[in-house]
Amino acid sequence: MYAFNPDAGYLVSIDMDTENAKVAITDFDCNIKAHSNCLIDINDGPEKVLDRIKEAVFELLAELRLDPDAVKGIGVGIPGPVEFASGMPISPTIMPGWDRYPIKEYWARYFNCPSYIDNDVNIMALGEYAKGLKFQANNVIYIKTAAGIGAGIICDGNLYRGSNGSAGDIGHFDVGGDVICWCGNRGCLEASAGGKAIVAKARESALAGKSEFLLGILEKKGELHLEDIALGMQRQDSLCAELIRESSVLIGRVIASIVNFFNPELILVGASYSEFDDTLLAAIRQGVYQRSLPLSTRNLSIQKSILGNQAGLIGAAYMTLEQLILNSINDQEDVAIL
Amino acid sequence: MYAFNPDAGYLVSIDMDTENAKVAITDFDCNIKAHSNCLIDINDGPEKVLDRIKEAVFELLAELRLDPDAVKGIGVGIPGPVEFASGMPISPTIMPGWDRYPIKEYWARYFNCPSYIDNDVNIMALGEYAKGLKFQANNVIYIKTAAGIGAGIICDGNLYRGSNGSAGDIGHFDVGGDVICWCGNRGCLEASAGGKAIVAKARESALAGKSEFLLGILEKKGELHLEDIALGMQRQDSLCAELIRESSVLIGRVIASIVNFFNPELILVGASYSEFDDTLLAAIRQGVYQRSLPLSTRNLSIQKSILGNQAGLIGAAYMTLEQLILNSINDQEDVAIL
Repeated sequence: MYAFNPDAGYLVSIDMDTENAKVAITDFDCNIKAHSNCLIDINDGPEKVLDRIKEAVFELLAELRLDPDAVKGIGVGIPGPVEFASGMPISPTIMPGWDRYPIKEYWARYFNCPSYIDNDVNIMALGEYAKGLKFQANNVIYIKTAAGIGAGIICDGNLYRGSNGSAGDIGHFDVGGDVICWCGNRGCLEASAGGKAIVAKARESALAGKSEFLLGILEKKGELHLEDIALGMQRQDSLCAELIRESSVLIGRVIASIVNFFNPELILVGASYSEFDDTLLAAIRQGVYQRSLPLSTRNLSIQKSILGNQAGLIGAAYMTLEQLILNSINDQEDVAIL
Repeated sequence: MYAFNPDAGYLVSIDMDTENAKVAITDFDCNIKAHSNCLIDINDGPEKVLDRIKEAVFELLAELRLDPDAVKGIGVGIPGPVEFASGMPISPTIMPGWDRYPIKEYWARYFNCPSYIDNDVNIMALGEYAKGLKFQANNVIYIKTAAGIGAGIICDGNLYRGSNGSAGDIGHFDVGGDVICWCGNRGCLEASAGGKAIVAKARESALAGKSEFLLGILEKKGELHLEDIALGMQRQDSLCAELIRESSVLIGRVIASIVNFFNPELILVGASYSEFDDTLLAAIRQGVYQRSLPLSTRNLSIQKSILGNQAGLIGAAYMTLEQLILNSINDQEDVAIL
C-alpha cells in the first residue's frame, strides 16, 4: 500500500466546470506550481473530456520537468453530485453521459496513485475554509453561482457531504414561477437564476432590441455566453445589470431560507465573474436581512469568496492531502492491529 | 461545584407548547417516573406561565415523595429560538413577552441544580435520536408540526444547534403566496401551513357553511382549536381532511428543499395529533420524491416519530443528562489542571 511522505511529491488538482477545466500541479502545501485552463464541452462525455484534461496535466508535468511518478494524489472537482466513496457522478443533471462513470479508474490508467473525486462546490468550500479562512470559523456556507448554483457546507469545523455525498444542492429549491428546469420540475432556482437561464433571457431580450451591446455580440459570434453578460456589466449595459440583479434576488431568497435552517456564522459567495460580485452580495444581504430571523443573523457575516477563482484548485489539492493523510493513518492502524 | 453522581437523583423534564406544558420527573436513564399536563397560555408571559409549571413540578415531587434536593438537573424545551449557552429565548415570534427572559434564573430560585433550556424541536430530535433510534443513524431531520413548524438536526451523530442556537427554523421558508406572517414577511410556511393558519382557515370555512361538524363546535364553544380538526379527521369530515392535506403539501415542498440541501438518511415526522400522521407522511413523501434529486433520496427513509408525544419529555431529560456529564468532565479537567 502507498505510504504517505509529506516531504516528497506533488498533487494534480483539477476543477471542472461545464465549459472549462482548471488544471494545476501543487506541492503538499497546496501551493500552485503550474496551472492552465483547457476548454472542454461537458456534453462530449467523460472519455473525451478527461483525455483533454489528461493532456493538459502531462503538459504541466513536462513544463515542471516532473515524472508522472512524482504525482502522489489526484483531486478532481466536478459540477454535479458525487458519491464520494466510489468517486462516481450520480445522475448529474448538467453532465449528460457521466452518470456512474468510474473517474477513479480513468486516472488509474495513467498514474500510480489514488484519486479522489468530489463535487466542485464541496472542494471550493473546503479550500476557502482550510486555506482562505485558515479554519477560523465553525459553520460556513460557501455559495457558488455559475451554470449551476450550489452550496458547500462546513459544519462544526468539517466539510459536510451528507449521507450520499449530495448535500448542498440548492439549485433545485422551489422559488415559484412556471419555468421548467432540466431536472423535469418547475420553479427550480437554477432554471430561473442559473447561468444558462441568464444567457437564455439575455438572448431573448437582445433579439427584442433591449440591448444593442448584446445584440452586437450575438450578431458577431452567433451566440452568447455568461462572460458576455460580465462584459456588459463592465460597459454599464442596463439589461445585463437587470438580469444579474433579478437572478441575485432569487438566490438571496433561497439563502435566507438556508440561514434559517442552518444558522451559519459566515456565508462566502463565489460569483462566476467578479463583475457580478457587488450585485450578488447586495441581493443576498437584502434577502437574508429581510427574511431570516433576528437570532440567525445576529453574528452572521456575508462576504465574497477569499480565494476567488482559485478556490476549486486549492480545495481539490487540500481534499486530496486530507484523504492521503487519513489513508496513511488507517494503514498504520491496520499494521498496528496485525 | 456540583458533582455528578449517576446513581443518585432525578431530573425535571418540561416540554412547553403555546397552550400546554408537559411536565415529568425522570430517573437518570430518562425513564418517566411521574408526569402531568398543565394548560398554559404562552401569551401570559414567563412569570405566570413558569409559576404554573413550577406548581405542577412540585405536585409530581410530592406524588413521588421526593425532596426538591433529589432533583439534579432541569431540562426545558420551549417553542421558540433559544441561545443555548445563556438559556434565553431570543425574539421568539409566538412567545410574546419572553424575549431574553432568564429562564435559568427562574429555576435557580427553587432548585439547587443547573437547568438547561433549548428549543423544543431540538430536544425532540435529541430524544428520538438517543432513545428512539438508539443512535442508529448519522444524519437525521426531525420535523415537528404544531402551532409552529420546526426542524431538529442531527448532523454526523450530534445535535446541531447552529452558530446562535437557532438552526432548524423552517417555519419562515418562503412558500410563495401573499399570506402575511406574524414575523412581518409574506409567504412564510408557518403563515400558510402552521396550526394557527389551519384553525383560522377552518373557522372561515365553517362560517361559510363548508363543515357542519366544525360549525357545530364553533357555535357550542365559540372558538376552534387544532384538536377539533383532529376530531374532524376521525369523523371523516372532508373540510378537515382538505385543510390538513393542503398544509401537508406545503410542508412537503419545504422538506424537499431541505433534503436537497442536507441529504439526510432519515426524516422523522412528529405531527401534533396522530390523526394527521398519514396525510402528513404521504404529502412529505410525495413532495420529496417529486422535487428532490435522485442521489439525495436513494437511501432516504421518511417515517413517523418513534417516541410520539413523549419525544420532548424524554429529549429534555436526555439533553440535561448530556450537559450534566459534560460539565462533570469539564470540572474534573479543571481539577486536573489545578
